[in-house]
Amino acid sequence: MRTRPLKVALLGCGVVGSEVARIMTTHADDLAARIGAPVELAGVAVRRPSKVREGIDPALITTDATALVKRGDIDVVIEVIGGIEPARTLITTAFEHGASVVSANKALLAEDGAALHAAAEQHGRDLYYEAAVAGAIPLVRPLRESLAGDKVNRVLGIVNGTTNFILDKMDTSGAGYSEALDEATALGYAEADPTADVEGFDAAAKAAILAGIAFHTRVRIGDVHREGITEVTAADIASARRMGCTVKLLAICERAADGQSVTARVHPAMIPLSHPLASVREAYNAVFVEAEAAGQLMFYGPGAGGSPTASAVLGDLVAVCRNKLNEATGPGESAYTRLPVSPMGDVVTRYHISLDVADKPGVLAQVATVFAEKGVSIDTVRQQGRNPGSGDEVVIEQGGGGRRVGGEASLVVVTHRASDAALSATVEALRKLDTVRGVASIMRVEGE
Amino acid sequence: MRTRPLKVALLGCGVVGSEVARIMTTHADDLAARIGAPVELAGVAVRRPSKVREGIDPALITTDATALVKRGDIDVVIEVIGGIEPARTLITTAFEHGASVVSANKALLAEDGAALHAAAEQHGRDLYYEAAVAGAIPLVRPLRESLAGDKVNRVLGIVNGTTNFILDKMDTSGAGYSEALDEATALGYAEADPTADVEGFDAAAKAAILAGIAFHTRVRIGDVHREGITEVTAADIASARRMGCTVKLLAICERAADGQSVTARVHPAMIPLSHPLASVREAYNAVFVEAEAAGQLMFYGPGAGGSPTASAVLGDLVAVCRNKLNEATGPGESAYTRLPVSPMGDVVTRYHISLDVADKPGVLAQVATVFAEKGVSIDTVRQQGRNPGSGDEVVIEQGGGGRRVGGEASLVVVTHRASDAALSATVEALRKLDTVRGVASIMRVEGE
Repeated sequence: MRTRPLKVALLGCGVVGSEVARIMTTHADDLAARIGAPVELAGVAVRRPSKVREGIDPALITTDATALVKRGDIDVVIEVIGGIEPARTLITTAFEHGASVVSANKALLAEDGAALHAAAEQHGRDLYYEAAVAGAIPLVRPLRESLAGDKVNRVLGIVNGTTNFILDKMDTSGAGYSEALDEATALGYAEADPTADVEGFDAAAKAAILAGIAFHTRVRIGDVHREGITEVTAADIASARRMGCTVKLLAICERAADGQSVTARVHPAMIPLSHPLASVREAYNAVFVEAEAAGQLMFYGPGAGGSPTASAVLGDLVAVCRNKLNEATGPGESAYTRLPVSPMGDVVTRYHISLDVADKPGVLAQVATVFAEKGVSIDTVRQQGRNPGSGDEVVIEQGGGGRRVGGEASLVVVTHRASDAALSATVEALRKLDTVRGVASIMRVEGE
Repeated sequence: MRTRPLKVALLGCGVVGSEVARIMTTHADDLAARIGAPVELAGVAVRRPSKVREGIDPALITTDATALVKRGDIDVVIEVIGGIEPARTLITTAFEHGASVVSANKALLAEDGAALHAAAEQHGRDLYYEAAVAGAIPLVRPLRESLAGDKVNRVLGIVNGTTNFILDKMDTSGAGYSEALDEATALGYAEADPTADVEGFDAAAKAAILAGIAFHTRVRIGDVHREGITEVTAADIASARRMGCTVKLLAICERAADGQSVTARVHPAMIPLSHPLASVREAYNAVFVEAEAAGQLMFYGPGAGGSPTASAVLGDLVAVCRNKLNEATGPGESAYTRLPVSPMGDVVTRYHISLDVADKPGVLAQVATVFAEKGVSIDTVRQQGRNPGSGDEVVIEQGGGGRRVGGEASLVVVTHRASDAALSATVEALRKLDTVRGVASIMRVEGE
């Protein structure tokens, strides 16, 4: 074994960074044996130098991250600051000064991954980022390497723990969104400002990264259609239950049937209770990968948290250090297919639509006519009272007659597969019907 | 991109080999783009050269595998022959003649992995074998690389599809073992001679490989305690159901609590229906990995079959070819901990024991005394009629009185955690009791 240590600079020492530093210290011998050389924490850049950081030599602490990555003797920079700047400049500066980089920064990779990969390649350095997607769950490496000889057609998963906790809580307790969010916040599953999670930005960044790797192309966060969970109601969840489904926030990346384009989207969707993703509870993450030869694979585990994320960072650290000792680099960006990202309108899936309608004869016929005109085929229609728990609902297969319930009625339509564009046109036309008082909810149905 | 192709020799052209060859041809452009150079099938060694092999140039076919690996211009040898010889000699010969090796040979790796790794290292070549464990499910790479910065404490999984199909069939249909095996054979899930699967040899080989990688030590198939499923009865499965459990053939690799040794075992076990492994149906595989920082991860997918196994082989092929172009090698054997493998007697778990007993007062007291004397603590006792479906059973918590049922009684004891040695001593003592007419079954209870 080489005795001269590899030098590591740690940028950021919050929940993840402090855990990385702790494991580097407590498991130094194991890391050295696995790498083939000792690794030494050579500097830790933080914003608040006065904070007591147990187990970290105060002499290593600096507020000057730029000077740290410019030192010239750093072999690997671990970036766990997050956000676009200064992380982006620090990473490119690190490459320029000879370091490889391990990052957990999903926002930056989803925004500017191509430029970062190009900088790494230009300087002959590694850029690894297993921790950017789904915490400790190995996904980036299996997609980049294990499935490198296969053709991935679809990636579908729960990649945000906060929203899964909230939806799971709504599903199991019948709570509304706000109540479930409050509980998630109280238990530390949601941040004080939960926007990035509940509006789907975090999941969209991960979807962009996964789609790019899976399809060997470039997908940026701006290419990902994004809907959060803030409009999911207790009624939606109850309605899903009646269909034998549950509601999950899914990230879905698909290769088009003709193979000539891809789509990436994040939105709440109903999935059947029999689907393995339906049983992913609390803040866990799970990702399904469908590949041509491998078939359906699933990866499951804790998607966030200091320790799991640190595990992913350290796995990358070992790989990058081994590469360094080998004077080699691992796989870089693979974007040779240059497949375009199609707009959401091209996505084909099934839909669950709840309409508030006037309680008059002929409403169902009017509604069904609109669907037919827009080319969206109806699977089932359910007509029910306004109170979802009233039990007076009747399921009407297509072609059956309507039935009035109480003074005002609600129609729940589940469609066959149709394009999002056709569905949008249908909904627009429905809104114009006098008998349709409102579109209560539209939710996609996936995983069937 | 390099234009001179990397040359690949394929040893074996059965279900897996022919699929590898097919994908290498149909997806040649993708493989070239991902590797950075084209790959060319330079020769295919088979036993029956006269067989028509669609899509493979007959000029590539040879029966002389030794001459093929000795050619000197082969970059990568793919070994999908299986078995110990001639595979072992062909692999070491390949290393000697400058080739790296991708193998799907679990039996050989579990028997002689250390020697193969040493040969690879001596010649500066790669030995990759993702396909040897659980088909297309990425497990070897995540354990060797993604979790290289973490400390794995436990690997627990369903790694044999044939036995999972049989047990699933017994569970869902109430069929007996023979009937379920017949169905598995008819559907192609079991081979004509099912010994390797049903007696647990296949799972034991995978357990040895997984334990070695997970704990950075050497575990051979002979170190793995092995029990198959041939003695699992419909009564065992019904009894599991009554406990809210199902029966699975599990491969379990554990680090001892003191960290100074490991154990590896394959045996049928009851697991709670709420455990994710309980819902792994038919011939699917799934593996739980518990690591110190990452927490619980699960990997799920098809564990066998030509296409899934080919996917794993080709993923390794891409990695090995990239390494070759980089003039580097990937991770080799990591066995630095040299942890000893403890005997089965040291394993600590829970047990479910069915006893046929005389229907006399005081039997429960006698039985309970034996457990107490051997230091095995009882969790629950259930006394029931001989017919498991009779419904006249009574659950008696420890300390409760006995109750007679019919002319002959059956006692079902579930223990708290105890060592296998203590349990064996208990069973031996129970057999000596006049009132115990037989030990109908002993099954471990896992996953709680």
